Amino acid sequence: MFKKILIANRGEIALRIIRTCKEMGIKTVAVYSTADKESLHVRFADEAVCIGPAPSAQSYLNIPNLIAAAEITNADAIHPGYGFLSENAEFSRICHENGIKFIGASPAMINAMGDKASAKATMKKAGVPTIPGSDGLLDSVEQGIKLANKVKYPVILKATAGGGGRGMRIVRNDDEFQKAWNDAKAESKAAFGNDGLYLEKFVEEPRHIEIQLVGDQDGRACHLSERDCSIQRRHQKLIEEAPSPFITDKLREAMGKAAVAGAKSIGYEGVGTIEFLVDKNKDFYFMEMNTRIQVEHPVTEEVINYDLIKEQIKVAAGIPISGKNYYPDMHAIECRINAEDPTNGFRPSPGKITTLHIPGGHGIRVDTHVYAGYTIPPNYDSMIAKLISVAQTREEAIVKMKRALSEFVVEGVKTTIPFHLAMMDDENFKAGNFTTSYLDTWDFSQVKA
Amino acid sequence: MFKKILIANRGEIALRIIRTCKEMGIKTVAVYSTADKESLHVRFADEAVCIGPAPSAQSYLNIPNLIAAAEITNADAIHPGYGFLSENAEFSRICHENGIKFIGASPAMINAMGDKASAKATMKKAGVPTIPGSDGLLDSVEQGIKLANKVKYPVILKATAGGGGRGMRIVRNDDEFQKAWNDAKAESKAAFGNDGLYLEKFVEEPRHIEIQLVGDQDGRACHLSERDCSIQRRHQKLIEEAPSPFITDKLREAMGKAAVAGAKSIGYEGVGTIEFLVDKNKDFYFMEMNTRIQVEHPVTEEVINYDLIKEQIKVAAGIPISGKNYYPDMHAIECRINAEDPTNGFRPSPGKITTLHIPGGHGIRVDTHVYAGYTIPPNYDSMIAKLISVAQTREEAIVKMKRALSEFVVEGVKTTIPFHLAMMDDENFKAGNFTTSYLDTWDFSQVKA
Repeated sequence: MFKKILIANRGEIALRIIRTCKEMGIKTVAVYSTADKESLHVRFADEAVCIGPAPSAQSYLNIPNLIAAAEITNADAIHPGYGFLSENAEFSRICHENGIKFIGASPAMINAMGDKASAKATMKKAGVPTIPGSDGLLDSVEQGIKLANKVKYPVILKATAGGGGRGMRIVRNDDEFQKAWNDAKAESKAAFGNDGLYLEKFVEEPRHIEIQLVGDQDGRACHLSERDCSIQRRHQKLIEEAPSPFITDKLREAMGKAAVAGAKSIGYEGVGTIEFLVDKNKDFYFMEMNTRIQVEHPVTEEVINYDLIKEQIKVAAGIPISGKNYYPDMHAIECRINAEDPTNGFRPSPGKITTLHIPGGHGIRVDTHVYAGYTIPPNYDSMIAKLISVAQTREEAIVKMKRALSEFVVEGVKTTIPFHLAMMDDENFKAGNFTTSYLDTWDFSQVKA
Repeated sequence: MFKKILIANRGEIALRIIRTCKEMGIKTVAVYSTADKESLHVRFADEAVCIGPAPSAQSYLNIPNLIAAAEITNADAIHPGYGFLSENAEFSRICHENGIKFIGASPAMINAMGDKASAKATMKKAGVPTIPGSDGLLDSVEQGIKLANKVKYPVILKATAGGGGRGMRIVRNDDEFQKAWNDAKAESKAAFGNDGLYLEKFVEEPRHIEIQLVGDQDGRACHLSERDCSIQRRHQKLIEEAPSPFITDKLREAMGKAAVAGAKSIGYEGVGTIEFLVDKNKDFYFMEMNTRIQVEHPVTEEVINYDLIKEQIKVAAGIPISGKNYYPDMHAIECRINAEDPTNGFRPSPGKITTLHIPGGHGIRVDTHVYAGYTIPPNYDSMIAKLISVAQTREEAIVKMKRALSEFVVEGVKTTIPFHLAMMDDENFKAGNFTTSYLDTWDFSQVKA
């Protein structure tokens, strides 16, 4: 087992990793920018090294400084957390070259999954369902209609040069095809000077459902069931839960099997997640693979009684896993508490926390690095806490979350707590009736300031 | 279901009950003495009523004021918590007479279990093992020796007028009996002017192990397995855990069966606990029954994923239980964090909490009513928080507890945190090797100030 792990990250995830290291008897080294010297991750680590000024590029993304910090402190492994360098192949390689174990994926694995097209091709080959469509550009309307009938309507025509929805058309049957084709061509020509179009099956009423995976160095892999992360605002997850209220046992089995096959096909080592889109017919399609721990990992931990960071460290140290899959026997929900103003477009609200009361009691877990008197720096992401509720049923987990949110007092900065309180009373949320676009049309004026 | 519950208590248990009421959609009324007006239980209840000055006799034990508070606020039930009036038959009766449901035992039940001799006789009749011994005073050495052989040595001779260990002798065989008899008689005569002696089987290396029970209004009863509360200082529990490291499945089954039989024999309604002494041979003996929720109930909640306060309220409202027993599938430990100085005889340390950092993360639960800036009044018991760890195994629960204790920062007052930190490193504790007298000879100088 490792003797000392350097945590190349900050905030709650740095503290989260330190906690597990302490429980495993592993010494820890915190690194921090000058903006973070008062952070709890610095206080609770065995050693702490300042790695540069506030901007991430000069500190948390500064590979030479991180490697130097590991060498000075004699750390034999580096845990990158999430974000920053956690999916940086160069960092993974440099760690390896310096004889420091990178607790994450190999450079080859990071590259393979980092490029979307190659990741999709790899997963398709392993039998993981991917969104079907044209191989490159379409030559003609006729070719498009033929393909649309093959992948089944609805389909979406997309401009190869496109972005922001321009040059895109959803087509629901043969009759609509010609007009959609003409419109998309004209629009993309006008917008981008390029009228090349490709076609994909249109995923209707998509939910973001991801499968948590663990693989070991001997080629074993298992899944730990799913998380539903469909409650997103502009692709930023806000609420995650396990299990998904949308998933049947049969679908869980199928998605888990596909994800494990995908992980095994690339000899995946470590914890990772395959994100899927699941449509209204419960067909699922590979989106991407994250080769790191995720923000929302605690909901999985709570429903299967499992420490994912511990497992990640054990696997990195070469300890084999059993290979058996894990299934939830509880329900957990996580609300991301961000220092953002949900009544004002989620505008970041850095500053000093003057009063803080963190909820507790039965079925409540809080992961946070902040305290009363702490100043949230403006330099990094605005998440200040993860509030997790766990109960026998989804209904109970929701009322527990609502209770805990109502006790959570943060003064001095704005937070997303009022948004989450409104969501816990939202009839569609309570009914499990939402897609990834649910918040696009949601009335944010119901959030009480 | 009740519409509004008045909580006739203070501190963490008042907050604990408010939390469950909120989750059940029941309104709450907090009561408080003038010393407690800044307490969180006051802030988080829907309504709050001041019931008198700081001394408990004038506030938390003031029945007319409590009933008046319930009537003013239209509360249809009163939850007494633990301590104070929770096992007061008169209060239970007066609540009933005023048409307010007392969420606890009936006056008859409280009286039956409140008197030790009658409780023992009742449980014996129901087949619950009790400590065998003489019915009243012994007439002669011969009668004593005969009885000692019947209940099996070792036995203890006790002065009927005794106390503080005087007039007591442990006897291990027939040969020792005559001398012990003479000595105990002489000592009790000298000390109390009364040389009457009675005899009991001596429970060797006793552990305090209690069975959690729930009974409903239809006569169903079930057990929720055991808690081990052997780590005590002067009969004050300091650490509790579930399951007991000492208990086998067979013994759990036998103790659970006996406890359920005891509860059923008296038609017990509500949550309650039968406390047993278990000797080194794993024989168990009834000590007493507590007809209320206990401080240490969270360890049971954590290992069986069950909200005991919710169950208590449901049963009080007439909702039946399934009757099936519950068995632990995790291990939980609770450390009582008291404002006491463990390096100075656990002297109470009331005062203002200037800095507070409460631990969190995976497998950690905290129940507390205090916050940074809160002043602990000198009038009440000194418990300021319950820290609970839960994990797959006892070993993991201990390292998790140690990690959480090391993060727990309370400045301004002394706390029992350093004592608990020392215990988590104690080889005997780690091995599960301790009895109720373990702390009698424990070296408290190893507690770091």
